[in-house]
Amino acid sequence: MASMATLFTKLSFPSHTVSKTLDSHFLPAVQVKLGLNPKPSRAYRRLRVSCGLIEPDGGNLVELLVEESQRDLKKREALSLPRIKLSRIDVQWVHVLSEGWASPLRGFMRESEFLQTLHFNSLRLDDGSVVNMSLPIVLAIDDALKLRIGESKKVALFDQQGIPVAILNDIEIYKHPKEERIARTWGTTAPGLPYAEEAITPAGNWLIGGDLEVIEPIKYHDGLDHFRLSPAELREEFTRRNADAVFAFQLRNPVHNGHALLMTDTRRRLLDMGYKNPVLLLHPLGGYTKADDVPLEWRMRQHEKVLEDGVLDPETTVVSIFPSPMHYAGPTEVQWHAKARINAGANFYIVGRDPAGMGHPVEKRDLYDADHGKKVLSMAPGLERLNILPFKVAAYDKSQGKMAFFDPSRAQDFLFISGTKMRTLAKNKESPPDGFMCPGGWRVLVEYYDSLASSSDGRLHEAARA
Amino acid sequence: MASMATLFTKLSFPSHTVSKTLDSHFLPAVQVKLGLNPKPSRAYRRLRVSCGLIEPDGGNLVELLVEESQRDLKKREALSLPRIKLSRIDVQWVHVLSEGWASPLRGFMRESEFLQTLHFNSLRLDDGSVVNMSLPIVLAIDDALKLRIGESKKVALFDQQGIPVAILNDIEIYKHPKEERIARTWGTTAPGLPYAEEAITPAGNWLIGGDLEVIEPIKYHDGLDHFRLSPAELREEFTRRNADAVFAFQLRNPVHNGHALLMTDTRRRLLDMGYKNPVLLLHPLGGYTKADDVPLEWRMRQHEKVLEDGVLDPETTVVSIFPSPMHYAGPTEVQWHAKARINAGANFYIVGRDPAGMGHPVEKRDLYDADHGKKVLSMAPGLERLNILPFKVAAYDKSQGKMAFFDPSRAQDFLFISGTKMRTLAKNKESPPDGFMCPGGWRVLVEYYDSLASSSDGRLHEAARA
Repeated sequence: MASMATLFTKLSFPSHTVSKTLDSHFLPAVQVKLGLNPKPSRAYRRLRVSCGLIEPDGGNLVELLVEESQRDLKKREALSLPRIKLSRIDVQWVHVLSEGWASPLRGFMRESEFLQTLHFNSLRLDDGSVVNMSLPIVLAIDDALKLRIGESKKVALFDQQGIPVAILNDIEIYKHPKEERIARTWGTTAPGLPYAEEAITPAGNWLIGGDLEVIEPIKYHDGLDHFRLSPAELREEFTRRNADAVFAFQLRNPVHNGHALLMTDTRRRLLDMGYKNPVLLLHPLGGYTKADDVPLEWRMRQHEKVLEDGVLDPETTVVSIFPSPMHYAGPTEVQWHAKARINAGANFYIVGRDPAGMGHPVEKRDLYDADHGKKVLSMAPGLERLNILPFKVAAYDKSQGKMAFFDPSRAQDFLFISGTKMRTLAKNKESPPDGFMCPGGWRVLVEYYDSLASSSDGRLHEAARA
Repeated sequence: MASMATLFTKLSFPSHTVSKTLDSHFLPAVQVKLGLNPKPSRAYRRLRVSCGLIEPDGGNLVELLVEESQRDLKKREALSLPRIKLSRIDVQWVHVLSEGWASPLRGFMRESEFLQTLHFNSLRLDDGSVVNMSLPIVLAIDDALKLRIGESKKVALFDQQGIPVAILNDIEIYKHPKEERIARTWGTTAPGLPYAEEAITPAGNWLIGGDLEVIEPIKYHDGLDHFRLSPAELREEFTRRNADAVFAFQLRNPVHNGHALLMTDTRRRLLDMGYKNPVLLLHPLGGYTKADDVPLEWRMRQHEKVLEDGVLDPETTVVSIFPSPMHYAGPTEVQWHAKARINAGANFYIVGRDPAGMGHPVEKRDLYDADHGKKVLSMAPGLERLNILPFKVAAYDKSQGKMAFFDPSRAQDFLFISGTKMRTLAKNKESPPDGFMCPGGWRVLVEYYDSLASSSDGRLHEAARA
C-alpha cells in the first residue's frame, strides 16, 4: 500500500486507460461469456463499459459454497475422508477461493497452475484467453499425510477446532519446491520474509491441489464479519448504488488525510472523465499481516472514525475487508491485489509507491525498487481491462497546514511523515501536525499503541496477526 | 539438453499440436505483417502453414548490422562516443541480437523489457500481441562508467581488443537488481550458479538498454565461423532444401546413438503426419558454457564424425552453431532455446528431461524437477505457434546391443549411461557398450579427455569456456 497520497502521473510505458479498454482487442473472456463473434461492434462494447460492472476473470464469478441443503451430507462425507488440518492462513485462502476472489480458480492450485503462476504470473484458460494470477494459492502437506491420503481421490479440510471446512476433490499431489517458490515470488531467498517464515519454510514437502467444495461460509466471529463482503455482495452493493465506475484502494495501514485527498481527487477526475457516479471501494486487507503492522481490528476502528469525521463521503464509499493474507511480495503481489478487485467489480485500481513492499530482510534497503510495482502492474498479462491509476507522493504542506500533492518547485514547504514517524508519534502520545489525520482516527492509533505498551511481547505478537 | 533420447509422450496438460497451430486464434503477429483483417480465412492460413517457414516473432526478422557502405562512418562515430568495453559474454549477446535470434528485440533490454522478462517471461508488443522472452538480455555498467556516459544519448561498444563492435542508441540506464534478477531467473540465489558468478555478481550496478547498430558481423576466427549460420541464412538453407517442417534439437553435449534414434524417429513421425520433407536443425550451443562441459570445438568434431559415420542423414540434417551463452536456468532457459529457434525457422522443438538443468550448486539434488522444463515450455506465452515434442528417456538395450526407447515392462534389459558415466569411461580410455556411440565420435571424446590430462588446470578452465 502507498504510505502517502498523490497526483496522477504519466508513466513512460504504456499504461491502461479508459480509451484503451474500449478500443483494444483484449476482453476475450467477455466475448466468450456473451457468445459474441470475435469482433463485437464498437458501439456495443462502449455501451457495455458504461452500463455494467467489469466482468470477473474467466467470465463468471466462481462461488464454491455447497448449497445449504447439501451441508449436512457434505459434513458427513468429510468425516469419512482422509483429513488435512488447516492453519489459520490456509483457512484464509479457503475463504478467498470460496468467494471467487481468485476466479476462475476453483480450488488450491494443481501443478500446471502453480507453474504458470511462478513463471508467467498468469494462467491460460481452455479458450486461449489469459487471466492474471501472480501468487501461488497452494496447500502444503507433509510426507506422513501424503502417505495417509494414499490413493484417495478426495480429502477433507478441517480447521484448528476440528470443524470440517471443505472437501477437496479430484486431488493432485506434487512436489513443493520451497526454495524456487520463494525465489520466484519474492525475488530473494533471504531469511526473514514474514510470509515465507510463517507459511512456507515450516510447511510440508508436498502440495495438494483440487476442486473445493466449501461447507459453510467462512466466519471469524471477531465482530468484523459484517465488513467481509464477498465479491458477489460487493457487486450487488455497487449495482444498488448505480455505480458506473468502481475504484479500489487497497490498504493495510491507517488512513491519513493524504490518502483521503487522493481518493476524493480520484473521484473528481472520474467525474471529469464523464462518469456519473464513481464509487470508492476502501478495501483494507484482513488476512495474515506481519507482527509490526497495525492489527485489523484497530485499523477498522480507525477507518470508521475517518468516515464518521466526514473525511470520506459515506455515500460514495464502500468499506469492506479483503480476506487475503499478505505476502509482502511487492510487484508480484500488487498484481494479485488488483486482479482480486476486478472480481469484486472494480475497473479502476489506485497504485502507489512501492505497493506491497517492505524493507529487505537482511540488507539495509527496500526490498523492491519503489517504481517497479506500478510499472509491473501496468504491463501485467490479464490485467489489460483494468485501468491503473498510479500516483505521486503527497506530503504535509506546512504553508497550508494540510496534506497536499507534493510540489517539487517549493519542496521546502513539505514535510514527509513516514510510517515509522507516525508510529513513533502515536506511541509517544504526541500529536502529528494539524490536518495530517482526523482527530478521531488519530485517537484510535494512540489507544492501540497504549494497549500494546501495557501488554506483554507475546500478546503483541498475537494481536498483530490479524 | 536431454542426456538421452526417447519416445514422444502425451502430457497431462494442453500441448501444442499441428492442428492447434492451424485452428487457434493465435498468430497475431502474422496478421499484422500480412495486413490481413483479424479473421483470415482458414483455407488461407492452412496454405501458409504448409508452404512456408514459420514467421519470426514480431513478424519480421530483426537484423542489426549496418550496411557495408556505412561501416567506416559508424566506426568513426564510435570513436567519438563514450565507450563500454564488452566482456566475451557481452559480445556473444551482441552476436545473438545482431542476427535476430531474439527478434523483435532491437538491442539490449530497457527496463520495461527487463521487468516483463523477469515477471512474465514474455513481452507485449505495441499491437497487443505477445512474444516469449524468458532470459534478460542486458548489458551491465558500473558507477564510474555511468558517470562518464553522463547525458549522452549514445554509447559505443568495444571488444576486449579495442575494436569498435556496435553503437547503442537512445540509451536508458536503470538499476541492476542483481539478487532479484538471479532469484527470478534461476529460482534460487545459492552461490555457485556458473553464469551468475561469471556475468552477474561481479558486474556493475546499472544496466544500459538501447537500440543496437552492429558495425560488422561478429566472428570468432576459431575455425568454426562457417558453422555459425544466422537465422536468415538458416531460413535460406531450409528453403533451398524445400523443407516443409523444421525440427530443432538443442544440445551442449556429445551426440550418442540415443539422441540419433530420437532424431530419426522424429523425422519418421513427421513423415507419418504428412510432411514431405522434414529437416533436422542439429543446433549445438556455442556461447559460454561451464568449465566441465565439453568445449565447443571438441563437440563440433564429434558431431562431424556422427554425420560422417552415417548415424544421421546429411541430406536432411543441418548442423549449425547457436551463438547464445548458456545460463543453466532450466525451465526459464528452455523457453529462450525454443523461441530463438522459431526465429531461425523451426516449427518443431524437441525437449527432453531436465532441459538446461544442472545439479543444485549447494544441495545434493538436481536444481529443477526433471519434468518442469517440458511442462513450462508447453504452457509458455508466445510459444503457442511452436509444436513442442517432448520425449521419454532412452537407454542402452542389452538384449539388442543398441540404444532403444526404454520399455518399463522389461526394465532389466536396459542400462542407463549417464553423462558422468560417459565422461568417466572416456577419461579412462575405456569403451562404452557397442552401439552406444559411433566409434569415430567416441574417439574424439577420448582424445579430448586425453588432451585435458596432459594440460594444466589453468588450460582446462580456458579450453572449457567455448
